[in-house]
Amino acid sequence: MPKISNRGCEMPQSPIRKLAPLADAAKARGVKVYHLNIGQPDLPSPKAGLEALKNITRKTLEYSPSDGYLSYRKKLVKYYEGYNINLSADDIIITSGGSEAVLFAFLACLNPGDEIIVPEPAYANYMAFAISTGAVIRTVASSIEEGFALPPIEKFEALINERTKGIMICNPNNPTGYLYTRAEMNQIRELVKKYDLYLFSDEVYREFIYTGSPYISACHLEGIEDNVVLIDSVSKRYSECGIRIGALITKNKELRKTVMKFCQARLSPPLIGQIIAEASLDVDDEYLRGTYDEYVERRKCLIDGLNKIPGVYSPIPMGAFYTLARLPVEDAEDFCAWCLSDFEYEGQTVMMAPASGFYTSPNLGRDEVRLAYVLKRDDLKKALFVLKKALEAYPKKR
Amino acid sequence: MPKISNRGCEMPQSPIRKLAPLADAAKARGVKVYHLNIGQPDLPSPKAGLEALKNITRKTLEYSPSDGYLSYRKKLVKYYEGYNINLSADDIIITSGGSEAVLFAFLACLNPGDEIIVPEPAYANYMAFAISTGAVIRTVASSIEEGFALPPIEKFEALINERTKGIMICNPNNPTGYLYTRAEMNQIRELVKKYDLYLFSDEVYREFIYTGSPYISACHLEGIEDNVVLIDSVSKRYSECGIRIGALITKNKELRKTVMKFCQARLSPPLIGQIIAEASLDVDDEYLRGTYDEYVERRKCLIDGLNKIPGVYSPIPMGAFYTLARLPVEDAEDFCAWCLSDFEYEGQTVMMAPASGFYTSPNLGRDEVRLAYVLKRDDLKKALFVLKKALEAYPKKR
Repeated sequence: MPKISNRGCEMPQSPIRKLAPLADAAKARGVKVYHLNIGQPDLPSPKAGLEALKNITRKTLEYSPSDGYLSYRKKLVKYYEGYNINLSADDIIITSGGSEAVLFAFLACLNPGDEIIVPEPAYANYMAFAISTGAVIRTVASSIEEGFALPPIEKFEALINERTKGIMICNPNNPTGYLYTRAEMNQIRELVKKYDLYLFSDEVYREFIYTGSPYISACHLEGIEDNVVLIDSVSKRYSECGIRIGALITKNKELRKTVMKFCQARLSPPLIGQIIAEASLDVDDEYLRGTYDEYVERRKCLIDGLNKIPGVYSPIPMGAFYTLARLPVEDAEDFCAWCLSDFEYEGQTVMMAPASGFYTSPNLGRDEVRLAYVLKRDDLKKALFVLKKALEAYPKKR
Repeated sequence: MPKISNRGCEMPQSPIRKLAPLADAAKARGVKVYHLNIGQPDLPSPKAGLEALKNITRKTLEYSPSDGYLSYRKKLVKYYEGYNINLSADDIIITSGGSEAVLFAFLACLNPGDEIIVPEPAYANYMAFAISTGAVIRTVASSIEEGFALPPIEKFEALINERTKGIMICNPNNPTGYLYTRAEMNQIRELVKKYDLYLFSDEVYREFIYTGSPYISACHLEGIEDNVVLIDSVSKRYSECGIRIGALITKNKELRKTVMKFCQARLSPPLIGQIIAEASLDVDDEYLRGTYDEYVERRKCLIDGLNKIPGVYSPIPMGAFYTLARLPVEDAEDFCAWCLSDFEYEGQTVMMAPASGFYTSPNLGRDEVRLAYVLKRDDLKKALFVLKKALEAYPKKR
């Protein structure tokens, strides 16, 4: 049998994926599993998008342009204007989800062995795309004690060497829910400018900021316009994960020209997803307000509930729909598995994402889990109660 | 401004893409351009697929499983049974088009610097995916004189060294329309077995075989089941290029496990595309027969017409919907550009794909073009007449 590639062997198996068979087995035993582990919004997609889907009359489902439909990109220009991000349609390249935007950004910007610096905990798939492209992720740890604020910028600077090509952030952050302040974003800007680095900024959760704090996009930072690569997606903001529509946005013409070569190789982003995403931009304020309010309530419900459980601590996330909480256990990976394989309370249990999957440093986050608040409040409350009972029953407490 | 990656610089710009601005300019001058250059079928998608699209009632457009819906994969098992290819649903991984299947196959199987051998002319994007992954494509030239038959297998064997990890074929072939014979497929099988290579086989045109010759899939070859990676897509067979649904199929469990890690990193193939593709499997024989008959007629129309033009020669393609023809010109790239920029006949001209984009050897195919027969017959006839006039008027004839 021919050999698997080295990168194939190195690709991490996320801890959530390892838990999936245990969850399936629990369900097969008739146990109700509350999924706190996933980032799949349960809220409905906007009616405007669903109606556009119904109204598709074309008879041939043909390729769309490699950079996406111009009509959609033009409409996106207006959407970004609403966030004080000034673009032209040419600055926007439509991708198959935010995932493809990250992959193409790395392919176009990074040579194998090139390094990017990422504050951790971080979205686990950045690591996967780095391995796919031969890039190396160097991490600077943020901490739960500091509420996952940006670590001191000197720690970033200390990692910079001749192979360093960029910094990658997620803002608002998955998995922590942290929102970078203007001061933090300016520190990043200075470093990017000083060393002429790329700044990859994943801002797919911008709709979900729950404090009065301003949203500072990487695109708001002056003087580094050619360095910034914005990663975007409609998956979270419109609960449209399945249509696979994202975007890679940059003012850097040479970079766009390069990214387009990768786009042309894969021919086309999804046609029907674009039609839905374009229509979804007409979403009414009521939908956005309703979605927002629902997440605000759930966040309150989850964070309050967590912090009431003895030994559990969660900072208050400012955005997105996740929090990273500390549990009174030695090994959260073991605890999460145990909840699925050895525990149930009145026929119920919880599934959570061990935080170890979001750190590259092997000893960080071992007592932390990521919880997503994409469940109805009643279910969140039940899940919190079950979690409390599980912690009481778990033998390997800290 | 930070540097572009080396692979970004190396990515080829296909000759067709270079012609696009010339075609746009011709259209802006009011010239009717007959597109013989593209592989975008103009025929309607199956009604069953379009109706499934209309009937989508879900309110949240959520992620689908990373390997695709089980119901779709189960139904595909039956589809492949019709071609005497025996699979289980587990052998099939759904991808975002055949493109993603090629990319993931290379990522999972090939290290940077590893070589695969491809008969040329070959689909240009194999080269793009090789560059994306750091793999190296070595080519063995087939020739128009031999009707683009498989070159002597000794020529493949002569290229094999310690970095050689696989052979890639496209069957029926894009761009030549050639269909490998049983004897040729057996020669490939022997070589794959002898050196324990991967055999990547792109068979997306299997519905379009116009001779009585049998379709020999890589999956029919005995004793190399763990070496074969089948690349598939619904784009061409159902005129559904825009839904971006392909598949990577292999009996090799370890390879599937590795490919799944890349699939999980990009989360999900398109949801709606899968619904359409699944329904399209219920297509009636009338649709398939109608599509097939139409391509048979167009093929006859195009090939007869080409060979009637003085100095033009096209072999008879056995499958797919392309042919590679030799023109009586020194440089087909120049001729194709000239047709768009300097020529028109009664307000019409033709756009063709210079064959140089399908060869890696710099001097091969310089007087060849690829023509796709995805135009209505009346338009094909007009296009052929315009091509004849263009060749008469072109100054740099051979």
